[in-house]
Amino acid sequence: MSKPFLRNAWYVAAWSYEVEQALFERTIIGESVLLFRKPDGNPIAMSNTCPHRFAPLARGKLLDGIVECPYHGLRFNAEGRCVYNPHGNGKIPSRARTTIFPLIEAHDMLWIWMGDPAMADPATIPDFSCQSDDRFPTVSGVIEMHANYELISDNLMDLTHVEFVHEGILGSDAIKAGEHEITQSGTTMYSNRWCPNGLAPPAWDAMFGNYGKPVDHWLYMRWDAPCHMLLDVGITPAGKPREDGIWIYGTDILTPKDETSTYYYWAASRSYDVDDPSAGQLWEEAITVAFGQQDKPLIEAQQHMLGLHGATDIDGVDAVMLPTDAGPTRCRKIMDKLRETNTSTPPDPRNPALTELLEKSTGNYTGRVTPVV
Amino acid sequence: MSKPFLRNAWYVAAWSYEVEQALFERTIIGESVLLFRKPDGNPIAMSNTCPHRFAPLARGKLLDGIVECPYHGLRFNAEGRCVYNPHGNGKIPSRARTTIFPLIEAHDMLWIWMGDPAMADPATIPDFSCQSDDRFPTVSGVIEMHANYELISDNLMDLTHVEFVHEGILGSDAIKAGEHEITQSGTTMYSNRWCPNGLAPPAWDAMFGNYGKPVDHWLYMRWDAPCHMLLDVGITPAGKPREDGIWIYGTDILTPKDETSTYYYWAASRSYDVDDPSAGQLWEEAITVAFGQQDKPLIEAQQHMLGLHGATDIDGVDAVMLPTDAGPTRCRKIMDKLRETNTSTPPDPRNPALTELLEKSTGNYTGRVTPVV
Amino acid sequence: MSKPFLRNAWYVAAWSYEVEQALFERTIIGESVLLFRKPDGNPIAMSNTCPHRFAPLARGKLLDGIVECPYHGLRFNAEGRCVYNPHGNGKIPSRARTTIFPLIEAHDMLWIWMGDPAMADPATIPDFSCQSDDRFPTVSGVIEMHANYELISDNLMDLTHVEFVHEGILGSDAIKAGEHEITQSGTTMYSNRWCPNGLAPPAWDAMFGNYGKPVDHWLYMRWDAPCHMLLDVGITPAGKPREDGIWIYGTDILTPKDETSTYYYWAASRSYDVDDPSAGQLWEEAITVAFGQQDKPLIEAQQHMLGLHGATDIDGVDAVMLPTDAGPTRCRKIMDKLRETNTSTPPDPRNPALTELLEKSTGNYTGRVTPVV
Repeated sequence: MSKPFLRNAWYVAAWSYEVEQALFERTIIGESVLLFRKPDGNPIAMSNTCPHRFAPLARGKLLDGIVECPYHGLRFNAEGRCVYNPHGNGKIPSRARTTIFPLIEAHDMLWIWMGDPAMADPATIPDFSCQSDDRFPTVSGVIEMHANYELISDNLMDLTHVEFVHEGILGSDAIKAGEHEITQSGTTMYSNRWCPNGLAPPAWDAMFGNYGKPVDHWLYMRWDAPCHMLLDVGITPAGKPREDGIWIYGTDILTPKDETSTYYYWAASRSYDVDDPSAGQLWEEAITVAFGQQDKPLIEAQQHMLGLHGATDIDGVDAVMLPTDAGPTRCRKIMDKLRETNTSTPPDPRNPALTELLEKSTGNYTGRVTPVV
Repeated sequence: MSKPFLRNAWYVAAWSYEVEQALFERTIIGESVLLFRKPDGNPIAMSNTCPHRFAPLARGKLLDGIVECPYHGLRFNAEGRCVYNPHGNGKIPSRARTTIFPLIEAHDMLWIWMGDPAMADPATIPDFSCQSDDRFPTVSGVIEMHANYELISDNLMDLTHVEFVHEGILGSDAIKAGEHEITQSGTTMYSNRWCPNGLAPPAWDAMFGNYGKPVDHWLYMRWDAPCHMLLDVGITPAGKPREDGIWIYGTDILTPKDETSTYYYWAASRSYDVDDPSAGQLWEEAITVAFGQQDKPLIEAQQHMLGLHGATDIDGVDAVMLPTDAGPTRCRKIMDKLRETNTSTPPDPRNPALTELLEKSTGNYTGRVTPVV
Repeated sequence: MSKPFLRNAWYVAAWSYEVEQALFERTIIGESVLLFRKPDGNPIAMSNTCPHRFAPLARGKLLDGIVECPYHGLRFNAEGRCVYNPHGNGKIPSRARTTIFPLIEAHDMLWIWMGDPAMADPATIPDFSCQSDDRFPTVSGVIEMHANYELISDNLMDLTHVEFVHEGILGSDAIKAGEHEITQSGTTMYSNRWCPNGLAPPAWDAMFGNYGKPVDHWLYMRWDAPCHMLLDVGITPAGKPREDGIWIYGTDILTPKDETSTYYYWAASRSYDVDDPSAGQLWEEAITVAFGQQDKPLIEAQQHMLGLHGATDIDGVDAVMLPTDAGPTRCRKIMDKLRETNTSTPPDPRNPALTELLEKSTGNYTGRVTPVV
């Protein structure tokens, strides 16, 4: 009844700075994952489940890169093999292993692959390099939302909501009147709004020194499956090049915790006031309000309303569509297509349909998508 | 497994004073309903679900009688039609409508019809005119109980519980010894207790100036499906007419929120001390204690006990019956009969069985049932 | 899907001192049970469900050994028969009875039999007489854990966990190196650890006057179905008899509340400092920490992890076994065998398979199992 999560996909497991040489747990697509760093700093992701009694390893100890189970002290190395049984003759059953997940550190984030390791290609991690680019000082965080990740993705892929949900902050008449273009390249979607020669939304105007005069405003959203979004958004004096204005690259990456809970990784990498931390604080506060106090309660209420209609997702009800739903709808179609072959059971890597689909889906995908700097 | 709610029935959606020119939500028989008043003061009930993304309209704005969705700003008029799409070319899909429910303001309450509008006859709203009658100053309120509405109805239709649940307040030896008569007229039930020539229950005696001498005590309960009760209860010196004593009309109207939650609308319209608000306060306090602190925890515990027996209602277990259960049992039989044709699916208005049943059920129903003033 | 509880078995319903001449409720294997004492002090266990409206009798009154229902005042005697109906002609339906459960007071505890009364043999109550033996002053209590009772039993039947879960308190190198023997007698299991000539665990060393020198340490666990454990545990100077050292009899009795909640009755009956209550307080504090703050959160987390794997018990997943699981495994095998005939439906007492099994299971069971004093 509920839709399976994609397994052969990269998910963000954590911000790099969340994981140190200590045990850290996060539940990802319904599975409890243990994250830690080895003494050399390399990050590891393994199943948090001890194969012996299913105790959570994250409650144990990290001993020089070795994980000790909190219950009976079995120890596991960074390859997931049990290397020590403290009891009796110390014999170690050959099945005493815990799953290791491919984990890549990139763009100041830890990217986990929950499916077939043989298919985990780091080259398919979408480009969020702005997050670790000195030219764009970045603030970031993570918010837990009690809603299905695709409802949150819908929210982000249709930015016409900003005028209503974030009224008086991020909306403007120019956005409503702006041009909107959706393009697709492989499984990457672009939903771009170009809103020239209008007054900037209040928050942007304030950040641009209470400019007060007409600007060109752009909101360029890039989406990669399952739910990795980067918004290139800014203003510049009407008719002037981007460099005369200010902008941010805004990260919106959604990692499902379970069917109705989602980790929302956000970041804002700004082009301006690069030496003034208060400019970053302003974004931190704005995002805490906009995502945490405006989007979050609304999307959670939407989830509740769907529940009253006997559904967990908008797909399960007969909803009226608007032209502005084109973005969310295209993303959902890509997801539905991927779900056909990339299901909750790790697929056979020799499955030709899947291979073909993935080849196709990266066919037009020239390395990384470069933000339009 | 669980019993469907009647749809072709009037439910109380709110007290009149709860709904102003502002958006107000209440969940009724499992559906989220939006209530508000138009600029002319007329109340409106519509589905709280925006047909676009299923956001709750109650979180939006009321603009001169028009409801604006909090998510993407679609606007709906009081007929439920989308009248404004702020995006793109502004085209409005013909399916962009939200359900309007028949809503009647009567007796200081808003009565909603959750079924087939063609069958909504205001003449079948039971008479609670005492609530808005200047001769009977009224205090009122609403309590949410976490129990099925029929368990609460059982409680009210068998007043032998008052001596035990409300011991020392509303019980008396005279009630136990009193005469009890149950009569039915259409789908209206009367359960009347006549308890002559005994000492009044402590609370009544206190309200009658610490009278201390024998009184005649009456408790006349009227019940209409699904669960609208009016209790005509009072005392008068033994052998004297009603007018020599004091009484109230006590409202007990139950509106199911869902299978195990109920809104309990209560009121007390008193015949005495009409210019003394403290007499009303006394009833407010007494009812807060009696219903909120005595009945509510007991009925919620009863619901929990039924759950341990794998049931949600007393119908689902093999309960022992007493003669004093005659009132609740008759009401439940009427409900079972109504459920046969009046199910959770809005019925075909041309369904002869239903029409016939409703005609029959109001055959002996001469307009409104008049409280015995 | 979930495993049924044994019905033909003794469970601890409460400590003797928890039940006075007052109404007391406890939920046992999913059923709400009312406990009280008659005026003569004899304890009674009856179903907490009033057969009339399923109200919880425990909210009513105890009147000279008679229970009055809080709802409509039906009264039940200690045999479960309704003896008074305060209403109308006072007739009492013959079915107005509430179930009485066999209840035995022994070893300072109330033992309840939830199955066929004809099979309730007090001689099969396991011996916990140390709890009421003046030579062994006892401290005791009860902790509610949100985990299946068999997961807690596993914990106790494999004491290799103490070094990890109770590190720095109850673990030692000698325990790891000790001898371990498991024996079975009928449905009684013994899991004994003998750890000679090593340093005592820190807590034991402190209690033995900071002894600091090698001791012999023993941990002898006795288990009876469904989940009654007694641990004879202590230390004595290496090579010396038990009487030269100190020990306790530690009670660990588990009574399922429901599938994922358990009442954990604990006690410590000490052999030393019998006139010094502070020695008992020390055990009370140690157990509060060890069971309430170390075992409880870990086992509850294990229950949560099993839930993520779609299971409620370790039986439902493909867990890796170690030699040290022999104790828990044997207990689970006995339970599985008992469940075959002793199911959640009270069995027919004439069922030969059951009779035979029970006869067999007590074949080697010579009265009570005597702790090794």
